[in-house]
Amino acid sequence: MRQPDPSARPVLGIGMVGHAFMGAAHSQAWRTVGRVFDLPLEPRLAAIGGRDRRAVRAAAQRHGWAVAETDWRALIAREDVDLVDICTPGDSHAEIAIAALEAGKHVLCEKPLANSVAEAEAMTAAARAAEERGQIAMVGFNYRRVPAAALAREMVAAGRLGTLRHVRVVYLQDWLVDPEFPLTWRLRREVAGSGALGDLGAHIVDLAQYLTGDTLAGVSALTETFVRERPLPAVASSGLAVTDASDGRGAVTVDDAALFTGRFTGGALATFEATRFATGRKNALRIELNGSQGSLAFDLERLNELEYHDHREPAPSAGFRRILVTEPEHPYLDAWWPPGHGLGYEHSFVHQARDLVHAVHTGRPAAPTFADGLRVQRVLAAVEASAAEGSAYTPVW
Amino acid sequence: MRQPDPSARPVLGIGMVGHAFMGAAHSQAWRTVGRVFDLPLEPRLAAIGGRDRRAVRAAAQRHGWAVAETDWRALIAREDVDLVDICTPGDSHAEIAIAALEAGKHVLCEKPLANSVAEAEAMTAAARAAEERGQIAMVGFNYRRVPAAALAREMVAAGRLGTLRHVRVVYLQDWLVDPEFPLTWRLRREVAGSGALGDLGAHIVDLAQYLTGDTLAGVSALTETFVRERPLPAVASSGLAVTDASDGRGAVTVDDAALFTGRFTGGALATFEATRFATGRKNALRIELNGSQGSLAFDLERLNELEYHDHREPAPSAGFRRILVTEPEHPYLDAWWPPGHGLGYEHSFVHQARDLVHAVHTGRPAAPTFADGLRVQRVLAAVEASAAEGSAYTPVW
Amino acid sequence: MRQPDPSARPVLGIGMVGHAFMGAAHSQAWRTVGRVFDLPLEPRLAAIGGRDRRAVRAAAQRHGWAVAETDWRALIAREDVDLVDICTPGDSHAEIAIAALEAGKHVLCEKPLANSVAEAEAMTAAARAAEERGQIAMVGFNYRRVPAAALAREMVAAGRLGTLRHVRVVYLQDWLVDPEFPLTWRLRREVAGSGALGDLGAHIVDLAQYLTGDTLAGVSALTETFVRERPLPAVASSGLAVTDASDGRGAVTVDDAALFTGRFTGGALATFEATRFATGRKNALRIELNGSQGSLAFDLERLNELEYHDHREPAPSAGFRRILVTEPEHPYLDAWWPPGHGLGYEHSFVHQARDLVHAVHTGRPAAPTFADGLRVQRVLAAVEASAAEGSAYTPVW
Amino acid sequence: MRQPDPSARPVLGIGMVGHAFMGAAHSQAWRTVGRVFDLPLEPRLAAIGGRDRRAVRAAAQRHGWAVAETDWRALIAREDVDLVDICTPGDSHAEIAIAALEAGKHVLCEKPLANSVAEAEAMTAAARAAEERGQIAMVGFNYRRVPAAALAREMVAAGRLGTLRHVRVVYLQDWLVDPEFPLTWRLRREVAGSGALGDLGAHIVDLAQYLTGDTLAGVSALTETFVRERPLPAVASSGLAVTDASDGRGAVTVDDAALFTGRFTGGALATFEATRFATGRKNALRIELNGSQGSLAFDLERLNELEYHDHREPAPSAGFRRILVTEPEHPYLDAWWPPGHGLGYEHSFVHQARDLVHAVHTGRPAAPTFADGLRVQRVLAAVEASAAEGSAYTPVW
Repeated sequence: MRQPDPSARPVLGIGMVGHAFMGAAHSQAWRTVGRVFDLPLEPRLAAIGGRDRRAVRAAAQRHGWAVAETDWRALIAREDVDLVDICTPGDSHAEIAIAALEAGKHVLCEKPLANSVAEAEAMTAAARAAEERGQIAMVGFNYRRVPAAALAREMVAAGRLGTLRHVRVVYLQDWLVDPEFPLTWRLRREVAGSGALGDLGAHIVDLAQYLTGDTLAGVSALTETFVRERPLPAVASSGLAVTDASDGRGAVTVDDAALFTGRFTGGALATFEATRFATGRKNALRIELNGSQGSLAFDLERLNELEYHDHREPAPSAGFRRILVTEPEHPYLDAWWPPGHGLGYEHSFVHQARDLVHAVHTGRPAAPTFADGLRVQRVLAAVEASAAEGSAYTPVW
Repeated sequence: MRQPDPSARPVLGIGMVGHAFMGAAHSQAWRTVGRVFDLPLEPRLAAIGGRDRRAVRAAAQRHGWAVAETDWRALIAREDVDLVDICTPGDSHAEIAIAALEAGKHVLCEKPLANSVAEAEAMTAAARAAEERGQIAMVGFNYRRVPAAALAREMVAAGRLGTLRHVRVVYLQDWLVDPEFPLTWRLRREVAGSGALGDLGAHIVDLAQYLTGDTLAGVSALTETFVRERPLPAVASSGLAVTDASDGRGAVTVDDAALFTGRFTGGALATFEATRFATGRKNALRIELNGSQGSLAFDLERLNELEYHDHREPAPSAGFRRILVTEPEHPYLDAWWPPGHGLGYEHSFVHQARDLVHAVHTGRPAAPTFADGLRVQRVLAAVEASAAEGSAYTPVW
Repeated sequence: MRQPDPSARPVLGIGMVGHAFMGAAHSQAWRTVGRVFDLPLEPRLAAIGGRDRRAVRAAAQRHGWAVAETDWRALIAREDVDLVDICTPGDSHAEIAIAALEAGKHVLCEKPLANSVAEAEAMTAAARAAEERGQIAMVGFNYRRVPAAALAREMVAAGRLGTLRHVRVVYLQDWLVDPEFPLTWRLRREVAGSGALGDLGAHIVDLAQYLTGDTLAGVSALTETFVRERPLPAVASSGLAVTDASDGRGAVTVDDAALFTGRFTGGALATFEATRFATGRKNALRIELNGSQGSLAFDLERLNELEYHDHREPAPSAGFRRILVTEPEHPYLDAWWPPGHGLGYEHSFVHQARDLVHAVHTGRPAAPTFADGLRVQRVLAAVEASAAEGSAYTPVW
Repeated sequence: MRQPDPSARPVLGIGMVGHAFMGAAHSQAWRTVGRVFDLPLEPRLAAIGGRDRRAVRAAAQRHGWAVAETDWRALIAREDVDLVDICTPGDSHAEIAIAALEAGKHVLCEKPLANSVAEAEAMTAAARAAEERGQIAMVGFNYRRVPAAALAREMVAAGRLGTLRHVRVVYLQDWLVDPEFPLTWRLRREVAGSGALGDLGAHIVDLAQYLTGDTLAGVSALTETFVRERPLPAVASSGLAVTDASDGRGAVTVDDAALFTGRFTGGALATFEATRFATGRKNALRIELNGSQGSLAFDLERLNELEYHDHREPAPSAGFRRILVTEPEHPYLDAWWPPGHGLGYEHSFVHQARDLVHAVHTGRPAAPTFADGLRVQRVLAAVEASAAEGSAYTPVW
């Protein structure tokens, strides 16, 4: 019995712009989500966009996209594209997202939302207008949808931690320790907007605001660029305008590390650190919340685990417990494997796709919205302002 | 530009029998492997087989199989099926695998290879004959292809541990702790062959033999069934012949736990423990190897990590290091995400599919072969024999 | 104001035989116990005994003993010695302990109680007779008094684990990995009785029986000596009769490793492993208990911690919690430092001294009694018998 | 043979002021140090001082001090006191220490050195003058002498970490989470000087400067008092002038938490956090150093361990190793127990006493000197100044 059309569900045509690391991760998510979760719409990998014809064709074939486009405007214009998934560097987010929204498409935009507050504001305005027309606009802060992080949010929202006192977050990587690592686009301000701050700091600011359900009121910051010149990459990476390359080296124009303290509106104190120079730490996004009733701790390098201390437990048997977040009762987990059979990094994108499809179907906005992304952007701007003004405490407006 | 046929590669048609937990995992692997790895053949999800027409159709649609078959013989006979992937309980492995091999198909058979040594011998003989015709037969000991386990094997093979002295393995789960957990097929000897021994013990015996590159020479064993009667399941599960159900309960006819010590041919001592009563342990396959030059430790609940102690390091700075097995130099990892962005349980099946496709392409047998599966079966038989004879040390012949 | 006699409490004169590693640890305990705990008697370091005059004098001075004796019989006979603390190798335990008990002295005897069941029986008989005269006889299984272990016992006794199913214990060291490590007394059967079995295995058998409140009913064992000849030590160590030293090497006559499985009387299954060849493990006494209601895990290398899983906790927030056993509510801890300020290995001896002093004062036997030590000895004998008979399951009588 | 004078070594008479928590810890150290280490001088517990006659007498008897004094000036004046050990709250440090130094005595002063920079300067001047007369003045930053910390310093000094980039330190406790915890002296500025900052922050500033071998150049800080009123203690604690107690509650006049970022002179960035509101953390002093060649991490709750990442190791086998700092080659460890037999919190005081006795004997200043304590005090002052000025980056002069 040959199968008929594999689904009677309406199709949701996806058009993705960009096909590097994030493009691969999103493709895997779009291919997988309907195989694991019951969805009201069937995502279809309609079109992938990129500037280099050969590269985008190869990506289309590798990742299973039906069509390759070399012009993102053409991709947005396609009738079979209902949702535009933006996986490019931050300097093109605003233009593409606003165009897609104005064209009536739903949008998923990788983080950080933009390279400036002004861009993010324009995007948020476009998203608000589009929402009134029933369109969805989401930012790709995928770590919210690691099950352990989603569980942490549930526990905080349920009051398990009481009044929050401390938020302690680091995002530690080490891929720039070698001074001969080349000057890729992530190290050029005109493309990436900022360095560790926008790349890693954006994640932890969003995650901290998400988990606490609160917003940062102000920050005091230091930033640093430890290695100020690096060799130019063999092949010019996306958007890299090289003007100072006489000796084959170019200036690093973004931060290598950003550290800041801050106050949440609700009174909690916070420390943040984002760096690409934490030798030996590969992807150590670690967050700890301390409240009057309990504490939580999470480490992305052990993403199937959440540590929880219940302060109401009598002292003799109290302690941080390691919850293996693989139970069917845990967020997203009833669709996956039996307890103890852990998920990986990529599954956060599958969960993001799942929630986005449901949002498109119901027409109800799905967090993180562009407004959430703007809020992160304002924190990043306050961090840069504080760092530029001798670490002065700088309100996030 | 609409894409042409997504690949010029020859197609490898997959026919899968069974569509429960393992069926879902294998489907995900077959869908993904060609999107991540460069393969010489393109796996195609040709047909899925199962006895219940409605269920197998639903599974076909959910998991993306082109055709649903209700007769495994018909599935094997299909021209578009080149490889038969057996995901049924152990009591049907021999019949299906031998038929498939005789029909000229490649075979991937879930573990344990069979429910008895006699069956496993017949399967191995069939596999040997088929190998001479260029067919591949592989057993699904997928944990060999968790990157950390594959790395461990590389390190042992490179002599990093010196002469092995100790092998210490447990596989701890806890899903039977509740005495009201129902009597599923895994708890009936006629379907499952054995209990924790065949399900969990088979994995750790294979993994221990794989990692050491050595074979168990003999064992001394204890087995136990802690809860001897359980409620019958609401819906009779696969193959469950209920003869003692007057009160709605039935006899558990397999072991809940199996413990054994043993000697490897090369002189190392070993302890093994497989149980479904280790309260709080969800999927704790833990193995430690101690050798004259170093040690390794692995825990499946933290599958992106491998602990390594280098005994040649001067004592003041020696210690077990936690290798985050996510570097591009690590097995399988160059095709995945950046360092620190961990994989999950399911990826072991993707890697298994990758290596199997290469084996089919080259015609060179891929471990674990059916002979490897038979070797495991003989250990399991020796365990049962020893347990039946007062734990007497029983050679594995 | 010059202080008068530092205490109005009655004095308990201690006489210690042996002054090596255990002698140093016991001395530190006797000096410290009255400074930390409120005691009904004041321990006084009356006399230390050893065969080598110069060495025992040095030890007396170093460790603060008032008098040095070279004849243990003279030490026992001293009027100012109320309690004899035996820190010699196992071959002299029986003779000294029985003599001391017959002389009316209380006795603390290092583990293992003896080198044979016969000796242990004689000692236990002597202890029983002495108990009727109000004397105390205790075996030095000091790990019972690591606070985390004592807490574990309290939790098991309170029913927190429900019915015990599994006991999993290892004691891993690595000081014999180097084949050139010399042939000290611990490697000669005539002095040490056995190797890893008596030294490490005795500890874990006692600890397992203590924590479970149950006794081993039978065992099935393997033992091995990996390195069968070693260089003779530069200076002959205590009691070493060298008969095969023509080439400067001698035969190792004890086990390097002992592995056994077993059944507890109450139905729990157990695995035990004691070895001096676990490369990289220094003092890894690890024990895990799984019961129907919960589990506990302990590792002597992290002796201020106890892991506890409460199976009654709802699955979404259940997990092994790390109890930092440093709270005033924890055993022995109200006399020490604030929470989080951990204790070390030596403090188990201080706690042992504390409880022993109270036992002497009240005249009530203090566990572990010689009968407890005999029970361990019988397990060790059953292990050796099983190992000699092809691992046959051997009841502990 | 009755022992003669237990030592022919010259005696070093100790006079200790204060007999609470620190007094107990120092007493234990003075009693133990000569029993474990070979010392050129024999410490003698000559006199203990305290204001309450009954309490100080009890302390003398409990801890083994020969004489109890109720006037610290009388204690300093005693001929049998060679070294004054100051264990009082910070408000009396300067007066006692300067008097003792002027009286020709060696001084060990608990941390923080003083409650103000002015006091610390006066003390440092007195110490410098005394040093010229051969006297020793040391501050009690005992954590420098936890073996793992001392090992970390050795490794940094040997260049194992290369150029330091990041210093990340927290000191987390939770004993103030309960708003009904009483208003002890540690919560009153006039006695304690500051709160978490002086108590915990002083430790981590000193440790960070010690481990890096560098000094903080400037800081940017936030401080907070979460609970601003607390019940007065049942018994007035030392020096507590209660003026606002009409309702049985008093104002907390110190910080509950202090957070700051900073720059080291050598270019490393740093984050510091000291709090008594980190629910579930008991004594979590955690420090991580990242350098161009490697990283180190330490956690006081696991004080026998040091984590080390060697960046020169090839990536496939690199990782943070857990060094069990219990080997004879490790600092202070050759005098203690075999490998794996861990030490506790109190032993840092024994090591401090050991090094101090050697310093007295040789006449060579022993770190941490009063100048080191002053440097810490200046950092604390800069933290308070920055916090008072909107977190402005504040140089440490």
